[in-house]
Amino acid sequence: MGGKSDMKRFLEPRSVAVIGASRKLGDGANVVENLINYGYNGRIYPVNPFAQEICGIKAYPDVKNLPEDIDLAVILTSRDLVLEIIRECAKKRIKAIIIVGVGYADADEQGRKLQLQLVELARQNGIRIVGPNTFGVANGFTGLYTAFAPFPIGKIPVGLISQTGFFFASTPYFKLVGKAVDLGNACDISFAEVLEYYEKDEDVNFIVIYLETIKEGRRFMEVAGRVARKKPIIALRGGKTDQGRQAVMGHTGALAGSEDIYSAVFKKSGIIQADSTTDIEDFIVTFSSLPLMKGKRVGIMTYPMATGILSVDACARYGLNVPELSPQTVEKIGRLFPPWAPCANPMDLTAAVFVMGNESKSCFEMIMQALLIDPEIDAILFISPALPDYSIYDYSEIVSRLSRIYNDKPIVSYLYSPDPERIMARKYEDAGGAVVFPSLDRALKALAMMSNYWEFLNNS
Amino acid sequence: MGGKSDMKRFLEPRSVAVIGASRKLGDGANVVENLINYGYNGRIYPVNPFAQEICGIKAYPDVKNLPEDIDLAVILTSRDLVLEIIRECAKKRIKAIIIVGVGYADADEQGRKLQLQLVELARQNGIRIVGPNTFGVANGFTGLYTAFAPFPIGKIPVGLISQTGFFFASTPYFKLVGKAVDLGNACDISFAEVLEYYEKDEDVNFIVIYLETIKEGRRFMEVAGRVARKKPIIALRGGKTDQGRQAVMGHTGALAGSEDIYSAVFKKSGIIQADSTTDIEDFIVTFSSLPLMKGKRVGIMTYPMATGILSVDACARYGLNVPELSPQTVEKIGRLFPPWAPCANPMDLTAAVFVMGNESKSCFEMIMQALLIDPEIDAILFISPALPDYSIYDYSEIVSRLSRIYNDKPIVSYLYSPDPERIMARKYEDAGGAVVFPSLDRALKALAMMSNYWEFLNNS
Repeated sequence: MGGKSDMKRFLEPRSVAVIGASRKLGDGANVVENLINYGYNGRIYPVNPFAQEICGIKAYPDVKNLPEDIDLAVILTSRDLVLEIIRECAKKRIKAIIIVGVGYADADEQGRKLQLQLVELARQNGIRIVGPNTFGVANGFTGLYTAFAPFPIGKIPVGLISQTGFFFASTPYFKLVGKAVDLGNACDISFAEVLEYYEKDEDVNFIVIYLETIKEGRRFMEVAGRVARKKPIIALRGGKTDQGRQAVMGHTGALAGSEDIYSAVFKKSGIIQADSTTDIEDFIVTFSSLPLMKGKRVGIMTYPMATGILSVDACARYGLNVPELSPQTVEKIGRLFPPWAPCANPMDLTAAVFVMGNESKSCFEMIMQALLIDPEIDAILFISPALPDYSIYDYSEIVSRLSRIYNDKPIVSYLYSPDPERIMARKYEDAGGAVVFPSLDRALKALAMMSNYWEFLNNS
Repeated sequence: MGGKSDMKRFLEPRSVAVIGASRKLGDGANVVENLINYGYNGRIYPVNPFAQEICGIKAYPDVKNLPEDIDLAVILTSRDLVLEIIRECAKKRIKAIIIVGVGYADADEQGRKLQLQLVELARQNGIRIVGPNTFGVANGFTGLYTAFAPFPIGKIPVGLISQTGFFFASTPYFKLVGKAVDLGNACDISFAEVLEYYEKDEDVNFIVIYLETIKEGRRFMEVAGRVARKKPIIALRGGKTDQGRQAVMGHTGALAGSEDIYSAVFKKSGIIQADSTTDIEDFIVTFSSLPLMKGKRVGIMTYPMATGILSVDACARYGLNVPELSPQTVEKIGRLFPPWAPCANPMDLTAAVFVMGNESKSCFEMIMQALLIDPEIDAILFISPALPDYSIYDYSEIVSRLSRIYNDKPIVSYLYSPDPERIMARKYEDAGGAVVFPSLDRALKALAMMSNYWEFLNNS
C-alpha cells in the first residue's frame, strides 16, 4: 500500500478510536468532545476502562473489545502503555496510529529507545505512525480533529505539515488549517509523504510547512521540487540560528542542519521561505488573491513622497526594482503632474491631486491604468491615507475595476491611517482587486515572494 | 531670541494667520476649518481676497490689513506669491512662518533659487521658517493643527519631528502626535532646534524622528546625544539604500548620507533606530509601558516548544541571549516539570501543565515568579494560545500582579490565536503588566531596543 493510501487513513478516516479518552469535558482538551464539536462525519470509538460512555458515545474498556473496522487510532496514554497498545491495535488490524504524548526522542534516553522500539513494532505489523509528541491531524472538510486544544479549522484550501501543533492555532486574521498533519517527532510518516498526499488532493491549493529537521533530504527535495510546480509551498524553519539549532535538539531529539544548506535546498525546490507566521499569513493571502508578479519591477503610486522613499528602500531590501516609467506612460499621464513634481517612479500623487482638484479620482484612474499597461512595470504598490470619513480618499471601486480589466499584474496597497476598525481596508478587500497590507515592508516582501516563485516556475 | 522661543511661536502660538485660506469646506483640507474642528484655543485670522468670512470667522483681504499681534503665519498660496507675502509678514512683525506648498528645492532649479531667496529674506527680517513642502505643525494639547489632511492628534506624550506629513497619520493602533513639526524641505528650522524644544517640554516623554537628510550633522549629534539621555529618541530614516537615496534627492532636493554613517551617528547619540512605522509603534508602547531591560538575557515561557525555538532564533537575530536558568530557579521549580521535559530555557509549559492539571495556574505563577527573581534573566517572553472561551489559558491576572511586585524586569507576551477581536490580548492590556505583541519578532525586537537604550544610558 503506497504513501497516498496511508495518508488517506490519517486524513480521511471513516472511523477513529480514541485510546485513553478523558472523561473531563469543557476544557477544550477532550479529543472525543472535540471530534463531536467539530462535526466529524465518521464513527468515534472512545477507549477508557473506567467509562461507560463519553459525551454520549459508548466507551470501550480496552482495544481488545473494539470492533474491527477502525481506520485510525489516537493514543493519548502515557508512554509506558504505548507498546502494549500498539500490539493490541495490530491485532485489530489498525494500520494508522497517532501517538500524541511526549516523552520519546523529545525527552530522555529511555524515551529515545522507546521510540525506536515502537517504530520497529509498527513496521513489523504494517502500521504507520504520526508522532509521538503531536497534535495529530485535522481535516476541515470532514470535521476530523485530534488536537487537545480547540483551534478553528475550515474548508480552506491550505494543507499544513508541521512539527508542532502551534500552527493549528491559525493567525489573528484567518484560519490556516484546511487539512493538517503535525508530524511531531516524525518517527515514521515523513514530510515527503504528506506532500505527495497534498499534491493530488483537490481540496488543497497551498501547502504550508513548519519544519525543524528533515530526514531523507534527497527524497524531500525531489518531492518538494515536483509538488512546488503545481502548488506553492511556503516553509518556515525553526532552528535557523546556532542557538535555535540547540533548542531543536531538545524539542524533537534531532539535529537541525545549517541555515545555508536548508536555504539552498528550499531555493532549488522552489519552496517559498517565510521568516515568521506573519509572512505565512501574508503569502497565502497574496498568492490566493493576486496574479503572480512576472518580474521584479514595481510602479509606486503614493501620497506622500516619504512613503515612496521608504518603499524604494523596502524594494531594495527584497530584491525588487523601481524602474523609470516608459516614455509612453510619461507621454500619456505627464500632463496630470505640475512641472515642479513631474511624473516619475515613485509617483507622488499629492501634487497631481492638488492640480486636478475635484477631478482627482479620474486622474487617479488614468494613472493606475497607465501603470498597468506600462511594459516596464510588473506590479503596482498604491499608498494612500485611509480616512473613512472622507470619500475623496476612497479609490477602492477604481482599483477593483482596473484589476479585473488588467488582470495580469498584482496590485498591493498600504493604507496608512488611524483607522482602528480598518474600515477603508475592508472596502478594498470587499471590492476585490488589491491586497491591503498593514505595512510597506509586508506588501513588498509578499510581492517579492510572488516574483521569486514565478522565476522558479519559468527558469528551472 | 534663542531656539526655544522660536519653536514656541510654532508650537504654542496664541494667534495664527492662514494666508490663502480656502473657502471650500468639508473635505478635510481646509486649514481654518481644521483649526476650528481641532478646538484650537488661540485666535484665527483667515486671509483671502475673495472672502468676507471663512467658517464664520472674519476674513482679511491681504496681510496688510491684518492686526499686529500674530504669532504664526501659515502660507498656503502658490510659490509665485510667497516672497511678497513674506515681505508683508515682516512689516506685520510676524516672526514664524510655515510655507506649506511644494515647488521649491523639492522641485526644479527655479524652486531651488526661490527657496534660497526666501531664506535670505527671512534672515534679514528675523523670521523663522518651517517648510516649504510641509504639513506644518500640530499640538494636541492646544488643538493647533495646520495640516491639510485631518488626522487625529491628542494629549499624547510623543513629540514628532519629520520631513513628511505621513507620520501625522498615526498608526492603525494609536495616535502618534502629541506635538509635531513637519520640517519638509527643512530650509531653516532644523531637527536640532525642535529636539531642544522637546527636551524641555514637559508634555513630551518620547521623541519620534523621520528624517531623510540632516544638515549641521555635528550639532545634531551633540543635541541628540544630550536629549537622548533624558527622553528616548526613536528614528526612522528614508533613503537607507542606494535607490532610496536617489529618491530622497527628488523629494527634498538634499543629498542623503550613507547608511553606515547614519547608523554610526545614531548609535553614538543613543538614538533608537526603527526600520518601519511598525517598529515606531512597538517601541513607543514598550518604552512607555515597561521597565527597561537591563541586559540581554531573555527567559522564555512557552506553549508549545516550537514557538520557543522560533523565539531563540529571533533572539539571536536581535542580539539577545537565552541563557541557562540559575541553579536556584531549577531547584525551586524543577519539580513542576516531568523528568522527560525538564525545567530549562526556553521552558516548555505544555508538559508541566499536563502534569499539574488543575493546578496549572498556580504552577504558572510559581514559574514566572522564579524567572522574575532569577539573577540570570533580564526579561520574560511569555507565549500562550489565546482562546477566549477557555479561561484556563487566561493568565492576565497573574502577569499583572507579578509585574507590579517585581517591577524591574519587562514582561512581553505573544498570544497566538485565531482570536479576531483580540479579546485575550485586551484582557492582558487592561490588566496591565505585559505588552502583548502580534508576532514573536516584534516582541523580541522591542525588548532588544530597550536593552540597547539601557546600555547607552549606562555605558557612555
